[in-house]
Amino acid sequence: MTILLYELCGADEEILFSPHCWKTRMSLAHKGLEFQSVPTSFTEIPGIEAGKAKSVPLLKDGDTIVGDSFEIAKYLDKTYPDTPSLLGGKEAIALTNFVINWSQSQLHPLIGGLCMKDIHDILADVDQTYFRKDREAKIKMTLENLHDGREVKIDMLLKALLPLKLLLKNQSYIGGDTPKFADYVVFGALQWLRITCTIPVLPQEGEVAEWFDRLLDMYEGMGRAAKAGV
Amino acid sequence: MTILLYELCGADEEILFSPHCWKTRMSLAHKGLEFQSVPTSFTEIPGIEAGKAKSVPLLKDGDTIVGDSFEIAKYLDKTYPDTPSLLGGKEAIALTNFVINWSQSQLHPLIGGLCMKDIHDILADVDQTYFRKDREAKIKMTLENLHDGREVKIDMLLKALLPLKLLLKNQSYIGGDTPKFADYVVFGALQWLRITCTIPVLPQEGEVAEWFDRLLDMYEGMGRAAKAGV
Repeated sequence: MTILLYELCGADEEILFSPHCWKTRMSLAHKGLEFQSVPTSFTEIPGIEAGKAKSVPLLKDGDTIVGDSFEIAKYLDKTYPDTPSLLGGKEAIALTNFVINWSQSQLHPLIGGLCMKDIHDILADVDQTYFRKDREAKIKMTLENLHDGREVKIDMLLKALLPLKLLLKNQSYIGGDTPKFADYVVFGALQWLRITCTIPVLPQEGEVAEWFDRLLDMYEGMGRAAKAGV
Repeated sequence: MTILLYELCGADEEILFSPHCWKTRMSLAHKGLEFQSVPTSFTEIPGIEAGKAKSVPLLKDGDTIVGDSFEIAKYLDKTYPDTPSLLGGKEAIALTNFVINWSQSQLHPLIGGLCMKDIHDILADVDQTYFRKDREAKIKMTLENLHDGREVKIDMLLKALLPLKLLLKNQSYIGGDTPKFADYVVFGALQWLRITCTIPVLPQEGEVAEWFDRLLDMYEGMGRAAKAGV
């Protein structure tokens, strides 16, 4: 039975922009597992798989349904032990959780500040209404206000990426010689930005740019071929 | 033959304050290895082991001399495979390097800004002269100026610790159920602050405080018993 991956899309179903869904896309490619993408808009999420999901990615593999990209990675490693490992042993799983929390707390707020209104603009009307209401309640300002002077956040993001930049001076990937799920965690964040942001933000040269380029080219250039909203 | 650990001290040889030396102290305790401490002041470093070291910690184990706390951890895991692992497998080693670079780039500059003049004040005269000249050239200001309004850095440090705080909501240690070298990396940074800083800085409650307390109590309370300069 084909694995189904429910993943977030814009008004154009080919625009798949969620950082978390990209973590899972890359995970499935890493393991060489075929999957069928089910593009899902924000307002369609409550209706998928009989309301089992509050968020995407959601993976359906036979009768098994798994949400959350980290849980999905653990599930894939356990279920397909003969494919390349995403996480490694238990110490590596624990340490991967640090990278996840770092990315979520240090990169995501800055990236959100750089592209949230741009994301809004690529959604279908009904999703725009949901997204604006939900996100404006969380950030306590309008999406437009969030983007006021957003350029200062570019430099803040580059500074926040410093631990990755320094690491890449000594090794090719966060996972070592080859990428692991921890790499896809950070890749997902930057791919989110690459696909949605209407101003140039990503570093064009240096260790982080080269690492990102290598990941964009992997798996037959899946990341690079992704349709962008801009 | 007893393992020797050269580690940084103040004018009072019992004040051992270096974050990197604490990483190694905790590593040796983790592995249950006896060692003899050789308190070493800044200006004594060039003279130890026939000038082989530019920095401490420096470990001498029989005829083997190893510097750098991460290299020492790798050496100990390799040389004493029957003792508890500090790092785990190769994926975990690669991921530990991320935590090291995060701590070094995100925590150390803030901690240095909070305690550098305090460190100066616990050194012997000859070391004070060296330390002031070396550090003021690096920071391009006086040690006194660095501490002007240093209180703002307390809040910045708490914010920088957010990835750790979030991680600790899901697991007991960065290494998982038990501490690993990655925990000692961050422990070393906070212990550096605890031993030297003349103003209260460390969080008194919450996940990070509780994690730090557990580590201070480990190995017969070695960390908690350490003599402080303040």
